[in-house]
Amino acid sequence: MKPRNLKRIAFATSLGGLVTVSVAADLAPLPQPKFNTAMAEMGRFLFFDERLSGDAGLSCATCHNPQKGWSDGLPLSKGYPASEYFRNSPTLLNSGFKKRFMWDGRLDGADMGTLVRDMITEAHTMNMDGRLMQERLKQVPEYNAMWLKFRKDDINGMRVFNVVGEFVRSVNSKNAPIDRFLKGDQGALNGTQRAGYELFKGKAGCVACHNGPLGSDGNLHRTGVPENPAVTSEPLRHITMARYYATSGLPNYMMTHDDVGFQAISKNPKDRGKFATPSIRDLKYTAPYMHNGMLKTLDEVVDFYDKGGGSGAELKPLNLGDSEKRALVAFLESLSGDPVVVDKPKLPAYKVRAFGKN
Amino acid sequence: MKPRNLKRIAFATSLGGLVTVSVAADLAPLPQPKFNTAMAEMGRFLFFDERLSGDAGLSCATCHNPQKGWSDGLPLSKGYPASEYFRNSPTLLNSGFKKRFMWDGRLDGADMGTLVRDMITEAHTMNMDGRLMQERLKQVPEYNAMWLKFRKDDINGMRVFNVVGEFVRSVNSKNAPIDRFLKGDQGALNGTQRAGYELFKGKAGCVACHNGPLGSDGNLHRTGVPENPAVTSEPLRHITMARYYATSGLPNYMMTHDDVGFQAISKNPKDRGKFATPSIRDLKYTAPYMHNGMLKTLDEVVDFYDKGGGSGAELKPLNLGDSEKRALVAFLESLSGDPVVVDKPKLPAYKVRAFGKN
Repeated sequence: MKPRNLKRIAFATSLGGLVTVSVAADLAPLPQPKFNTAMAEMGRFLFFDERLSGDAGLSCATCHNPQKGWSDGLPLSKGYPASEYFRNSPTLLNSGFKKRFMWDGRLDGADMGTLVRDMITEAHTMNMDGRLMQERLKQVPEYNAMWLKFRKDDINGMRVFNVVGEFVRSVNSKNAPIDRFLKGDQGALNGTQRAGYELFKGKAGCVACHNGPLGSDGNLHRTGVPENPAVTSEPLRHITMARYYATSGLPNYMMTHDDVGFQAISKNPKDRGKFATPSIRDLKYTAPYMHNGMLKTLDEVVDFYDKGGGSGAELKPLNLGDSEKRALVAFLESLSGDPVVVDKPKLPAYKVRAFGKN
Repeated sequence: MKPRNLKRIAFATSLGGLVTVSVAADLAPLPQPKFNTAMAEMGRFLFFDERLSGDAGLSCATCHNPQKGWSDGLPLSKGYPASEYFRNSPTLLNSGFKKRFMWDGRLDGADMGTLVRDMITEAHTMNMDGRLMQERLKQVPEYNAMWLKFRKDDINGMRVFNVVGEFVRSVNSKNAPIDRFLKGDQGALNGTQRAGYELFKGKAGCVACHNGPLGSDGNLHRTGVPENPAVTSEPLRHITMARYYATSGLPNYMMTHDDVGFQAISKNPKDRGKFATPSIRDLKYTAPYMHNGMLKTLDEVVDFYDKGGGSGAELKPLNLGDSEKRALVAFLESLSGDPVVVDKPKLPAYKVRAFGKN
């Protein structure tokens, strides 16, 4: 992909009249996250609390484990017992800045509460009933106390999802060399990394889709990542995908045995195989890569794009030399900050609410 | 309760004009069950198939175990992992003839499909998603073949519930002495049992509520069974009850720590503590008794009614002598037939549906 194909972002300024300036897409420093501290603190407990799943056997942290880059380290996520999921578990880092959620772009990035609700209530993920969740949390005195720090009512199922979301908003990359570099510290990247950045913006054209603070345009693209064969050969994964298609209303879904991506949402055959551009921050911690975990290393990712992606891709071959590929990988590594580790808090126990004290 | 208080059933006959005859309530022989054989056969597999629960860990038979009188032998049912239920698991025997389902009479006896749906999908029981269930079953070739024996479409979530219901309809008491006796075989009950039957219909007045083929009027009554203390002392049971009340819309439910029975459905405070009259068939296999398993033996049950029930009961003391109590228990035992045992079938395995063969 050539620089001339880069997506352009228009800025309008009214200083001294109306001036419109087109600038090439680029990466940008991570903004300061905004979140309610008391909500995020309760959300931290809930994020690790297995009682938010139907069988009280897994929590948000099971598939978004801080020790594994807020993902699970697997090509395809496991999901709820007796299910096996059909896509890769994405990192939660910097989710508050995402424009879309889910690999097929199903949810708006502004609606974190719905994202959390889906993850907690979906049969394949945490399989929880929202009303049961509410009653479980009400019977933990410490949770009632935390709730009252930011609201003056009883713990309410729908709002619990926003509380978890507020914690997620608080989980962000820190101290990534790229942020220091973008803010003017030339020494934050070494020579190879700086060369990689030039390739990223220039010859390799990565920045066309990987731009902004997350290194993601938040749009859907077809890069032709090969199907993960486990999705068709393992019944539990195949069942999960079929159930997802049945739910999304994909026409004739029982004839569909590959991952159609955004088509399941838009129902437009032109969107078959399109997936949301992921963030490229903290890649060091989030292998394997792509929506189905088919690429194990950043070297494989760069090789994949060098060939112009897979079958049906929107891309063109890059014809990079070996040293260019190495520079690009070195640059991608500079997008990782310090590990963001949050430990599981000691979870408070259930206690029956006493009569007359409610 | 005196015979004069007995509920009377009016029969209208048009033979030779319009004549209305009032007759005292009585037991009646069990009718022949009606069901679709092919549906019931598929339902037999599904009844035992753990894949109908969210985590594939329990089946209908877990709480309605043929080896335990189609119940579970526990005072309070366990329910789904990380839940503990707050009522007794009733036997499924003869459910096709019930006028109401659930201890609080929540469901109409004519609607077996909804009963099965609730049990399979409720968070406390099998916590299953109907769409996931459908996809799981579709990926079992043997189930597709069974389905095509009675329908010409794909396995459909909502209809699966009726299939399980059809099996339940096929599960009925057999060869109970009371049926032979009611059909004219005087020798089917011994002298003590016949004396017990007279007390049942007369001095003890049991027949007021325990009449018809099931020994149940299908109505709701307050007998004052004491609360099971586990419901308020064990958080998981208390949570389950609170969630149930939240779902049913019981006003101010967080102030309600006892089992209000039908009030949670009708919302009428006059219905507090009313529960559906259970069948008295096959009592031999279904201990412990009452909606919360608080009475362990039939002797305890007879003693309970002899005292006029518990606090707030609609009943009056019976003042039975010891030999009368023994006769009544002997009679109640004659209401049990041969054990109805159905073994778990060998369940067919998942197989991914192949492309182009759907």
